[in-house]
Amino acid sequence: MTIPSFSTFAKKSKQLIEQQLHTYVGVLESPTVLKESMEYSLQAGGKRIRPLLLFATLDAFSKDIERGLPVACALEMIHTYSLIHDDLPCMDDDDLRRGKPTNHKVFGEDIATLAGDALLTYAFQVIATMNHKEVTSEQKVALLAELATSAGAEGMIAGQVADMQAEGKELKKEELEYIHRNKTGKLLVFPVVAGAILAGATQKEIATLKEFSELLGLAFQIKDDILDVEGTEEQIGKRVGSDETNEKSTYVSLHSLAGAKEILATTLVKAKESLNSLQVDARYLYDICELVGNREN
Amino acid sequence: MTIPSFSTFAKKSKQLIEQQLHTYVGVLESPTVLKESMEYSLQAGGKRIRPLLLFATLDAFSKDIERGLPVACALEMIHTYSLIHDDLPCMDDDDLRRGKPTNHKVFGEDIATLAGDALLTYAFQVIATMNHKEVTSEQKVALLAELATSAGAEGMIAGQVADMQAEGKELKKEELEYIHRNKTGKLLVFPVVAGAILAGATQKEIATLKEFSELLGLAFQIKDDILDVEGTEEQIGKRVGSDETNEKSTYVSLHSLAGAKEILATTLVKAKESLNSLQVDARYLYDICELVGNREN
Repeated sequence: MTIPSFSTFAKKSKQLIEQQLHTYVGVLESPTVLKESMEYSLQAGGKRIRPLLLFATLDAFSKDIERGLPVACALEMIHTYSLIHDDLPCMDDDDLRRGKPTNHKVFGEDIATLAGDALLTYAFQVIATMNHKEVTSEQKVALLAELATSAGAEGMIAGQVADMQAEGKELKKEELEYIHRNKTGKLLVFPVVAGAILAGATQKEIATLKEFSELLGLAFQIKDDILDVEGTEEQIGKRVGSDETNEKSTYVSLHSLAGAKEILATTLVKAKESLNSLQVDARYLYDICELVGNREN
Repeated sequence: MTIPSFSTFAKKSKQLIEQQLHTYVGVLESPTVLKESMEYSLQAGGKRIRPLLLFATLDAFSKDIERGLPVACALEMIHTYSLIHDDLPCMDDDDLRRGKPTNHKVFGEDIATLAGDALLTYAFQVIATMNHKEVTSEQKVALLAELATSAGAEGMIAGQVADMQAEGKELKKEELEYIHRNKTGKLLVFPVVAGAILAGATQKEIATLKEFSELLGLAFQIKDDILDVEGTEEQIGKRVGSDETNEKSTYVSLHSLAGAKEILATTLVKAKESLNSLQVDARYLYDICELVGNREN
């Protein structure tokens, strides 16, 4: 059998996830406006890099990616809810997200708040009720614990709060890293760990993959900061230099543009070294390293 | 051994839950302001009727109530998050809750939104990571599925959206019932079902207890509507007649005050009949029926 190219794999992954997210919202017996609001943001055209990471990890252990579909959808629901709430007037007050009007601009702040709450809640439901002959209750509990911890008050939300408190202040390197490790990092670590749990990986393999994904998450954030300075508005779907106007500390403001690019390259090399130490064919995870380094939005 | 009176049992239940909620927030490694905001609303002095229902159900099956403590805390976290988000300016825009300033009045809308999100997320974490020798992974998965379904887009949030859409309209009986069954009902059914799951009850017993708790939830809501007309502001901690000013349909507006009282009495009789059919000593559940019928706030 021919091994699908990375772009074929990524395309299939994106199709699968968007179709399944559509199905998950479709089966809900809920007020129409709530479903429309959930669907609007779920289908607003993200990169789907988190599901891709989960599928690529499963593939590294020669497991069928369908096994990870519910968990990947749950993760995308949590990522999406966080964007909806972040965009609210009481938070970042953004009118545009990926070039489209933000959820509250279309549905109102009340429905947007509730659609976010509903997506967050549904994420846990989807994992708890998933039905796959190879997935045990022990694995489900481990996944649910890991997801809640990554997304919650010691993970994504901690990073979000720290980020808000940092606005207008000059940050130390450690403070900036705390924010990124939590705000964006933990939800990039989760899919890799989740893929490993679902594949029945050893604790040692899980630890190595965790290290890999932490480095990848860091690279992802550095690239974000570089793009914010270098990108065009069309490419990144928000105002270029918006971090600067908001007086946010970034890797570029801390290390200069050239410095940030060097750290990005070093970080990706380290991430690949982690993968090298595994006894599996992690081909698509290497490809994702390239993708993170070279992406233009 | 003497059987503790209901008031002793209820007092112990309240103490246990408030102490454990305090501990759960205390152990979080999170930004201080986030923990303060979570703690503020968790300790704002609710009736704790949901945990009491869970403990009373466990007691009916002669099980130690400590077994249900994490689940009861999780439920109280979800109830609390829903109040924080409901009070936001983009929702009900309330300045007071139980006679105290609402969360966003103290911590700001951004932190209040995130504290709500964090409580919702932590609820699932607490159940997934609970550690009790009698509680299996299968039971945890069942509890997590049940809680997410009850609180989410087909449960509490569905009711909340329907309630918002109903404002200023005259509702039919079925529409009003849909709102209450979901908005408040499902989180009153959950603790009873959860207690039964934790106690290892049969499917038949769970079905009977579900019927009981649906009737109890209905009674709870009717009593709420009656109190809104009859209560004093001090007793209920919000403006008396506020439903009327908001042009909300209620059991009183649909059936008159005397009619609502009659339905309340009939509903509680039916609830007790459900309990009668069980082969367990559900003493405290009968007491809770009395409490719901007679409460003054």
